[in-house]
Amino acid sequence: MMQGPAVELGVQLSVLVGAADEAAALVVPSAPVGSPTDLEAVCAFARRCDVVTFDHEHVPPDVLAALEADGIPLHPAPTALRFAQDKLAMRTRLTELAVPAPRWTAARRPSDVEVFAGTVGWPVVAKMPRGGYDGKGIRVVERAADLDDWLAAVGTPGPLEDGVLLEERVAFSRELAVLVARSPSGQAAAWPVVETVQADGICTEVLAPAPAIQPGLAAAATAAGLTIAGELGVTGVLAVEMFEVPAPETGGSPAYLVNELAMRPHNSGHWSMDGAVTSQFEQHLRAVLDLPLGDPRTRAPWTVMANVLGAGHEELYSAYRHVMARDPAVKVHLYGKPVRPGRKIGHVNVSGRSLGDARARATHAADFLAGAIDE
Amino acid sequence: MMQGPAVELGVQLSVLVGAADEAAALVVPSAPVGSPTDLEAVCAFARRCDVVTFDHEHVPPDVLAALEADGIPLHPAPTALRFAQDKLAMRTRLTELAVPAPRWTAARRPSDVEVFAGTVGWPVVAKMPRGGYDGKGIRVVERAADLDDWLAAVGTPGPLEDGVLLEERVAFSRELAVLVARSPSGQAAAWPVVETVQADGICTEVLAPAPAIQPGLAAAATAAGLTIAGELGVTGVLAVEMFEVPAPETGGSPAYLVNELAMRPHNSGHWSMDGAVTSQFEQHLRAVLDLPLGDPRTRAPWTVMANVLGAGHEELYSAYRHVMARDPAVKVHLYGKPVRPGRKIGHVNVSGRSLGDARARATHAADFLAGAIDE
Repeated sequence: MMQGPAVELGVQLSVLVGAADEAAALVVPSAPVGSPTDLEAVCAFARRCDVVTFDHEHVPPDVLAALEADGIPLHPAPTALRFAQDKLAMRTRLTELAVPAPRWTAARRPSDVEVFAGTVGWPVVAKMPRGGYDGKGIRVVERAADLDDWLAAVGTPGPLEDGVLLEERVAFSRELAVLVARSPSGQAAAWPVVETVQADGICTEVLAPAPAIQPGLAAAATAAGLTIAGELGVTGVLAVEMFEVPAPETGGSPAYLVNELAMRPHNSGHWSMDGAVTSQFEQHLRAVLDLPLGDPRTRAPWTVMANVLGAGHEELYSAYRHVMARDPAVKVHLYGKPVRPGRKIGHVNVSGRSLGDARARATHAADFLAGAIDE
Repeated sequence: MMQGPAVELGVQLSVLVGAADEAAALVVPSAPVGSPTDLEAVCAFARRCDVVTFDHEHVPPDVLAALEADGIPLHPAPTALRFAQDKLAMRTRLTELAVPAPRWTAARRPSDVEVFAGTVGWPVVAKMPRGGYDGKGIRVVERAADLDDWLAAVGTPGPLEDGVLLEERVAFSRELAVLVARSPSGQAAAWPVVETVQADGICTEVLAPAPAIQPGLAAAATAAGLTIAGELGVTGVLAVEMFEVPAPETGGSPAYLVNELAMRPHNSGHWSMDGAVTSQFEQHLRAVLDLPLGDPRTRAPWTVMANVLGAGHEELYSAYRHVMARDPAVKVHLYGKPVRPGRKIGHVNVSGRSLGDARARATHAADFLAGAIDE
């Protein structure tokens, strides 16, 4: 999705791909094949680039170290990226920065979960510090035995050597995301705060901007995003996923608690491809190249993004034609990935003056493409 | 510029390029090298495509015939394309369709120009029927000897064997363009009529929509665009360049006269890349693939496109940074072509609620990129 903006900006992309028929290799001419864990392949690739960036956070530390030792400009830098790779490091750092977050602890002994639940109450949320996404690497723990069962199932050593992150389960009213971009010279820009709608731990819809968000909450959440980007030294796009928690019954305002960080263009920012003056992909390029950042403002009062999740069927073409014919203003984005149940294979964006209308049209188109509905 | 939309729609482009370092080959992975006049190269290329389309109209007839004989789907078809290749054929056909146009004739003898000027007055406009663009292949003729001088200079045979197109010089108030797209199954969609601003025969700016255009004129011009597309059997994008002529002093309304046709995404439609729900490049792909067409409506009250014309200097980078820093909402599009004086090397789009503001910002950015101004 970075190739379109790269073409327009006159930026030449080169992508290290795992196989020659990967989606990215079909759209970027320079796409050498190599394993992202093969030090030599990655370094040989990187030496031909002015700047290296990442489309996911799971880059092994030895690869990052080798690239750094080679003097390759990395954006985000490993010193920033570790806070998106390791949830315990992230929690520790955000706590130092006094960013509002769920109460948390690092469990190293089975008894830790009992102690923690004694403070925050059952259930608690257990997370693997590394490697999780889309609800993977996360478990709601109702009692201590659940944690043992889960750790045994995922094969983590019994004594919890590296620690498991435990968080209170937050009674949130909805989920929000703040996307910001920051350049090496420190310029930063934030898109409007959006609402993300999740089902089974997977984002299904994004509403931009977040409907009826209190201005004070939006400003505070945005400020937190910019603070995190600055303090962690993030370069490129940073997505900060948050819970909105209702105002206490005794009065006050709704608030936010930071849930997760991602340091790359993120699903919660796909709406910007059609709904903002500068999309997250263009902005990421501008940021990592230390070009002046673009205007993040919206192009329409509302933009709704709906993810297309793979269903049982491989054949998309007739649904694709139907969706285009039914609603000529739906913007369809397909990723060229093989269809697997539950996998994000594309998304649609719909902009307009009516949130309800845009939402109905976006979800209809996404559901139709996914095969979840047929009329 | 078609690669961005192709990526999003999941369409695989393949481009026949003249050299491996051509701009298109740097952004499209499948870019075999071959001459567009080499029958075998073109046919071998085309056999691997589902549909073949063109980025200019100057495809030799024998190449088109060979592709047709091979059963390759061509959009636009040669039967339509000839009206964009041959201005005499175009004038003849539009006259049959009663489309308003400047008075014209085909001069085959030097004396024809005297006879024609006797009817429409001096000067007259002489055009080579084939091969002209951006003011090339066109001459304002003040007296008969001018035509002889010009024909001698361009090397056309003395007796005007193939005919030279002569047109009355129209006292127009401004130039307009109507862009429409039409699919093989006959669906058609029109963007709003735009104003094109020319200097020395080269388009410098496009104002979308055409400011203060009379609704009746806009409707009639749009209807003419759709009629031409339908009657000529155009598939893909059709650009119809027009003159707006003022209302007669005796009363009545302003009117249009059709000037030129182009059967491809056209400079007068570049504004749509940022200013319309569906850009001309996405729409061209949808049309030639016979997919349902997208919504051509505007995303903003005004969008101004300004062309970046090559100046004396090759180095664009510092100007590029300056333009981005000065105005984060300017959308910069660079074509990756070597800089030559007067050559279109990119364009910028600016959208907004104020035409004057958008126009000032777009022309400033384009002039700065071109090196015509330095502050």
